[in-house]
Amino acid sequence: MARVTVLGSGVMATALAFPLSDNGHEVRLVGTHLDREIIDSIQETGVHPNLDLKVPEGVRAYQLEEAEEAFESAEVAMSGVNSFGVHWAGERLASLLRPGMMVIAVTKGLEAAENGDLRILPDVLADEVPEDIKDQVSWSAIVGPSIAGEVAVRHETCVVFTGLDAEVLEDLARLFRTGYYHVWTDTDFVGCEVCAAIKNCYAFGAGFMEGLLDREGKSEDRYRRYNYGAALFGQATRELGRWMELMGGEPETPYGLAGVGDMFVTSMGGRNVKAGRFVGAGEPFSEVQNGRMKGVTLEGVAAIRVVGETLPKLAERGLVAHEDFPLMRHLYEIVAHDEPVDMPWSTFFGGER
Amino acid sequence: MARVTVLGSGVMATALAFPLSDNGHEVRLVGTHLDREIIDSIQETGVHPNLDLKVPEGVRAYQLEEAEEAFESAEVAMSGVNSFGVHWAGERLASLLRPGMMVIAVTKGLEAAENGDLRILPDVLADEVPEDIKDQVSWSAIVGPSIAGEVAVRHETCVVFTGLDAEVLEDLARLFRTGYYHVWTDTDFVGCEVCAAIKNCYAFGAGFMEGLLDREGKSEDRYRRYNYGAALFGQATRELGRWMELMGGEPETPYGLAGVGDMFVTSMGGRNVKAGRFVGAGEPFSEVQNGRMKGVTLEGVAAIRVVGETLPKLAERGLVAHEDFPLMRHLYEIVAHDEPVDMPWSTFFGGER
Repeated sequence: MARVTVLGSGVMATALAFPLSDNGHEVRLVGTHLDREIIDSIQETGVHPNLDLKVPEGVRAYQLEEAEEAFESAEVAMSGVNSFGVHWAGERLASLLRPGMMVIAVTKGLEAAENGDLRILPDVLADEVPEDIKDQVSWSAIVGPSIAGEVAVRHETCVVFTGLDAEVLEDLARLFRTGYYHVWTDTDFVGCEVCAAIKNCYAFGAGFMEGLLDREGKSEDRYRRYNYGAALFGQATRELGRWMELMGGEPETPYGLAGVGDMFVTSMGGRNVKAGRFVGAGEPFSEVQNGRMKGVTLEGVAAIRVVGETLPKLAERGLVAHEDFPLMRHLYEIVAHDEPVDMPWSTFFGGER
Repeated sequence: MARVTVLGSGVMATALAFPLSDNGHEVRLVGTHLDREIIDSIQETGVHPNLDLKVPEGVRAYQLEEAEEAFESAEVAMSGVNSFGVHWAGERLASLLRPGMMVIAVTKGLEAAENGDLRILPDVLADEVPEDIKDQVSWSAIVGPSIAGEVAVRHETCVVFTGLDAEVLEDLARLFRTGYYHVWTDTDFVGCEVCAAIKNCYAFGAGFMEGLLDREGKSEDRYRRYNYGAALFGQATRELGRWMELMGGEPETPYGLAGVGDMFVTSMGGRNVKAGRFVGAGEPFSEVQNGRMKGVTLEGVAAIRVVGETLPKLAERGLVAHEDFPLMRHLYEIVAHDEPVDMPWSTFFGGER
């Protein structure tokens, strides 16, 4: 039996308590300052309000002030915050981690340096931790197609644990694997994390196909816009491959669970798709963000901003061509400059020809 | 202005009359012996009954006996039959084609020789035509994500014209390209055609995710089985890549329109997905085929049978390993031997590890 302590009690972190508990491990959820009501609810009724499910028997919930107690004698520390909380989580972990712990993160995103260099979030998380501790724990992450609630109701799910140390990944995988939660391991840390972050951007675009129907009053029509969505999916896949070249990921990483698999599931719904749908229907993105979706965390949109601001810098440095990533650049124009959706089809797939 | 004559008046062939007509070309639809009522309907009312749309002004419909008249002075001959009609279509074309014509096919599928060698359908079609004519016409095909009705209502669509002659492909593309119908050309004929055929097989599997919910009485539940579908999509993508190695297609062909793009759109619905859903819900495939879906053309299932029977032969010849293509082999067991759906997850992605 292992002790797994989770910083953050969002839906994904909490869902992972299900396979862990099914395997007899002890799970301790520590709420962030934003999770106070979630922790109250779990402590009082056992129910996670956003998942709308009772957490497994034996899962214990802690308020942030009790974090030290919760991390006591834990072998595994999970970072369960979203991309906006990664620096905060790293600062907290700095005082909570102890040598020998295995850290595993579910956060997906990218951060850019001033010169345009992109960094994966597990590295950003680790860099908040002082060197002496940072080097005495292991850093890994979970990627792949995984809607949290489906894990929590024990629907079959296939994911990838990624990090640089194959043995650690296998140790972690053994803790989580059940009959419904299948885990592969992959030491292409950069490639897996870049896919996980970038596919969220393209999922925003997946909302356009419904939005365009809304705009035309065709929401109930027999003929949808799947051809449109499929073309975007194809171009997004092309661009994922190009991201691997740029970031040093393995060429085949996009073409399995971490890439197209995750992009498929993310395109089926969620907040980014919803925001994309409003934009596809004709609303400028700034109105969506300040109106109907005010206060909603949009990690895909955040990643589009990071990446979109970075591409011109990388082009100036000669690392990408100005015409590279045409779909990503259009997504950036939409979210950063309120451009209407108007796909530059002829620039896709190396240019229509 | 060009004259394009189509053998077969199914939904896809008819839908392609829209971009052609929009470009001012003359389109003549020739019904097969199975299309008699479709041709009657177009002649009497202009409406294609399966598309449920009026065909463009100026499209002329011919019964099969009038084929010779319809092929008179045509520059382009389109084969619009489904995979079951490809030999028949080749035999008809043998007497209808004239030197210099460009043939373009929309039929998707594979045919196997006794020893397990797989052939793409444009080759099968061409082989029905006597050598002296066969070599004096060009052979091309259309692949990529394209639901016929969406083309017919002029929703944006991106496709690939494939064949061995780049100039012919460009000539054909010019006839079809409109503001909503975007055409790329690709001389990886084998790779594109194999993707087009094989993705239909995997689309059958895409039906399982809904079927499993049906079986459990969870069709209306908040939590779906998208993680399941996404894992299959990821494994299917892996296998598409492996098919390229086996058949000599270009390694990158699966990772754009012809592969994942087309697989995405095919997974969104259609007859193969519907059949897969019934099987996922627990019905043996033979009951689905002889019951609810009796008489319905299931090209994906047909391709699963062809490929599934072939794999052991290829393994015997040392061309594939016995453990290769685990998803395809499970699909074959389901359609050929009425096995229940029970994903061999641990064999996917090179083995869970």
